[in-house]
Amino acid sequence: MKYAIGVDFGTESGRAVLVEVATGREVATAVYPYLNGVIDEALPETGRPLPPDWALQDPDDYLRTFQTAIPRVLSDAGVTADDVIGLGIDFTACTMLPVRADGTPLCRLDSWRRQPHAWVKLWKHHAAQPEADRINRIARETGQTWLDRYGGKISSEWFFSKALQILDEAPEVYAAADRLIEAADWAVWQLTGVETRNTCTAGYKAMWSKREGFPPRAYFEALHPAFADVVDDKMSRDIRPVGERAGGLTAQAAAWTGLRPGTAVAIANVDAHVAVPAATVTDVGRMVMIMGTSICHMVLGREEHIVPGMCGCVEDGILPPFFGYEAGQSCVGDHFAWFVENCVPGRLAQEAAAQGVDLHTLLEQKAGALAPGESGLLALDWWNGNRSVLVDVDLSGVLVGATLATRPEEIYRALIEATAFGTRVIVETFQSHGVPIYELVACGGLPEKNRLLMQIFSDVTGLPIRVSASKQTPALGSAMFGAVAAGAAAGGYATVYEAAQGMARLKDQAFLPDAQRHAVYNDLYADYLRLHDHFGRGGDDVLKRLRRRRAEARAQAEPVHA
Amino acid sequence: MKYAIGVDFGTESGRAVLVEVATGREVATAVYPYLNGVIDEALPETGRPLPPDWALQDPDDYLRTFQTAIPRVLSDAGVTADDVIGLGIDFTACTMLPVRADGTPLCRLDSWRRQPHAWVKLWKHHAAQPEADRINRIARETGQTWLDRYGGKISSEWFFSKALQILDEAPEVYAAADRLIEAADWAVWQLTGVETRNTCTAGYKAMWSKREGFPPRAYFEALHPAFADVVDDKMSRDIRPVGERAGGLTAQAAAWTGLRPGTAVAIANVDAHVAVPAATVTDVGRMVMIMGTSICHMVLGREEHIVPGMCGCVEDGILPPFFGYEAGQSCVGDHFAWFVENCVPGRLAQEAAAQGVDLHTLLEQKAGALAPGESGLLALDWWNGNRSVLVDVDLSGVLVGATLATRPEEIYRALIEATAFGTRVIVETFQSHGVPIYELVACGGLPEKNRLLMQIFSDVTGLPIRVSASKQTPALGSAMFGAVAAGAAAGGYATVYEAAQGMARLKDQAFLPDAQRHAVYNDLYADYLRLHDHFGRGGDDVLKRLRRRRAEARAQAEPVHA
Repeated sequence: MKYAIGVDFGTESGRAVLVEVATGREVATAVYPYLNGVIDEALPETGRPLPPDWALQDPDDYLRTFQTAIPRVLSDAGVTADDVIGLGIDFTACTMLPVRADGTPLCRLDSWRRQPHAWVKLWKHHAAQPEADRINRIARETGQTWLDRYGGKISSEWFFSKALQILDEAPEVYAAADRLIEAADWAVWQLTGVETRNTCTAGYKAMWSKREGFPPRAYFEALHPAFADVVDDKMSRDIRPVGERAGGLTAQAAAWTGLRPGTAVAIANVDAHVAVPAATVTDVGRMVMIMGTSICHMVLGREEHIVPGMCGCVEDGILPPFFGYEAGQSCVGDHFAWFVENCVPGRLAQEAAAQGVDLHTLLEQKAGALAPGESGLLALDWWNGNRSVLVDVDLSGVLVGATLATRPEEIYRALIEATAFGTRVIVETFQSHGVPIYELVACGGLPEKNRLLMQIFSDVTGLPIRVSASKQTPALGSAMFGAVAAGAAAGGYATVYEAAQGMARLKDQAFLPDAQRHAVYNDLYADYLRLHDHFGRGGDDVLKRLRRRRAEARAQAEPVHA
Repeated sequence: MKYAIGVDFGTESGRAVLVEVATGREVATAVYPYLNGVIDEALPETGRPLPPDWALQDPDDYLRTFQTAIPRVLSDAGVTADDVIGLGIDFTACTMLPVRADGTPLCRLDSWRRQPHAWVKLWKHHAAQPEADRINRIARETGQTWLDRYGGKISSEWFFSKALQILDEAPEVYAAADRLIEAADWAVWQLTGVETRNTCTAGYKAMWSKREGFPPRAYFEALHPAFADVVDDKMSRDIRPVGERAGGLTAQAAAWTGLRPGTAVAIANVDAHVAVPAATVTDVGRMVMIMGTSICHMVLGREEHIVPGMCGCVEDGILPPFFGYEAGQSCVGDHFAWFVENCVPGRLAQEAAAQGVDLHTLLEQKAGALAPGESGLLALDWWNGNRSVLVDVDLSGVLVGATLATRPEEIYRALIEATAFGTRVIVETFQSHGVPIYELVACGGLPEKNRLLMQIFSDVTGLPIRVSASKQTPALGSAMFGAVAAGAAAGGYATVYEAAQGMARLKDQAFLPDAQRHAVYNDLYADYLRLHDHFGRGGDDVLKRLRRRRAEARAQAEPVHA
């Protein structure tokens, strides 16, 4: 029996899963909670405080994940290193760091350890907004064609926003960095001794495309004179498709992990994207939804289409030779967590306790007893702005239809319905721009937790929803890519398609749309769209004015610092 | 020392207050909780069930109030009947009943006791909506000019809606009723043995005006052939101005109350309207707000103006010779009660308990620490429809601007601000239609309970707010009218103006608008108005569609009764 290992690097921890190559059976799992977690208040050891909106990580937490979690799955499963043929990893993105030419992170050096810009900038580091604004403004002014592939807007979370912030705020760090690299690629480098760059992060987070490469030198120069040669000086133009072999495990990495030297290591991947084939999706027409605090929507297409408001369209970005389309909703699980935390009265908490269930379960029960339209409520799911298709972080939530008879479970259901309407907008925008979608495939934490939500998504969109059989779909996907890196001759697979055939599974049960509920939701959706366009496309910019006034009021309320 | 007694008939109880005529000092108060309360599920004794939306009362509860509460204030105060010179009453309205020619309520007769239509229809009996719809439709079709005096719409709560429901559904009760009468006038009749009708209820609830009288016979005939002579057959065209003496206490009523036979009794009044002079308002320019579960706005004018969306404009309706204007907001205290009941998490309840305060107080503290605009929220205060100025019960509440950082106290403050914006719409509508307002005078329960709300009302409207010194302003007002009914020669007053001079008081402290907060609220108010018109004046009728769908969903969800 042959095995592959997938390692999924999350926000708070890294997770290794040992998988049977022939069947996809997940034999053992081990989680390493990062020693330094998310660094958003003060640097480790020196205690140097961080400004607001910063979020860093310690690269040695990634190595500790290898050193801890991989030996543990081997030992838990009683599998010997000889039977492990490949290793794949996936990562949050864009999570990036400055390193020396030999791969040493700057933050590991005594001379830079007190400098925040020397550390890993985690995906949710949001302090590079001024740089993102500059990137967008100059792209529009200079008519950059790649901008349309990203819904017309680059995020502060992405690679060049973060890189430019280093140059703006710490030019000495920028100068000392021989390389600026995605943590995903850096981790593979640590395993293999070879620096590689993957199509997924390059395409979705660094404006690279297979046909056009990176944006032109003149554009980077317009951002900052010293940024003109960022690609050639600090990065690489050699971008390797996901699905390839990056190299073999070094002796040192073999010692860390307990695996054999030379074990095949796959080109790095992004957590959401690697989940696509692991959710059995290896062709067009079936959209994958990774559903957790937010939703990441991914679908494959045979051609490149410019679809308004998506997060990116990248050739070979998910699965060569397809164009991988990504879209997103920024407030899903977060929404319900906010509601339960802030809006549910104590009497319901007591009722839940009496039943021995949590509040989410109780609300799901009560909301599930309602028919579509029965709450009389309609919401816009913009509590955390709108990612797709409006690409506007300054939007905020709307609830209409409340009466003195409105109960908490009705609001809860309206919030679920709003996120489902938001997904329907994304689905229909893809469909009307040449990207067919006829089925949804869900993975992530939410589908396990909330069956009502899944049924409402199906009723609202009118599409069947299948659910990934794995509870750790990204890690399974990484193991699949590891098995492909090993190749068929070693007992793995020749292609990701074959790996998906052998290793990816769906649950038997599907969520199917109910025709009657779908009909009511069609009416409600028409109203949702009307509100969506009124508040989101300039009918009334009140949400932006409210946000601006809130910022002004808070600025005045805060004491002035010396 | 001379005294007057005011009796205020509320929804759940009747309250008697004994007041010193010279000073307005409230010497004693007694409350009688109605034995049969609000009858909305089943008739007393027979247990006959009532349909939805019904709300009845037992007229004998009004007599028991006289019999119980008046003797108690006399005894508590140690005042003898000889020193009580007058008695006034005020009532909820329209609260009406069918009686025999001698004043006997039909429901007191064995033959009618099981017939719901024989009982008192309380103000909040809402089952006469079909009749109200007919009244409005035919009024519009036949170009009735009086309709404009009521904001273009007659409520299901009003006199002819209720009377017509009796005729429609129980013609035998209609036929058996020698009189249809406001409970206010019926109670005075029981005290004096004389049937009188007052300008206040006739004007505000029965479409009567001093200059035009009641609507024409042809109009009533168009409503129902048997309704043509409702005024002459069942009512009276002799409408007596508030402020007059109705008569003297009968021997029987003297025995009930412990007062002297012949004690002066005033023409009946309505609870909200009688509060106006008791809040020191006896001239134009100062709007009274009776603030409780809802707000009733009242202002005096020298001329008749048609102001869109008011509840009524009645000559001599509040205080002769003025035109009394009434407007209203249907969801104020109710709003905050709903919020505390349904939307405040248990952790805040624990925090309130730890501080030894109630949740309203805790929320007021937290909301009071916020600056205008700081919540980033804006609401439309339509949780219970909109009374003035849109006159539309099918509207519902709207909240915009929510984020994952939104806290309960921010929503609470947004709801307060929304009610203040709603009052500003009413104030500005009066002002722009020839009815000047330069100061607000508040009474009712809310001003005592929520200082933050009062300050926000002042900051939003830009007007100073004074507060009535009495915690039972309507009862004080009734006592004032009682003192006027007694007259100056008996130790009372010749006019309500003089009574107000002697007996009505304001608190010393006023709420004054803060210029800086008012400036921010001016901006927010512009946004409120834009939402108000978008959702309330046809920009998007989504609120009505949601309500219709809710009704449809509920109708389908309910089991079909045989």
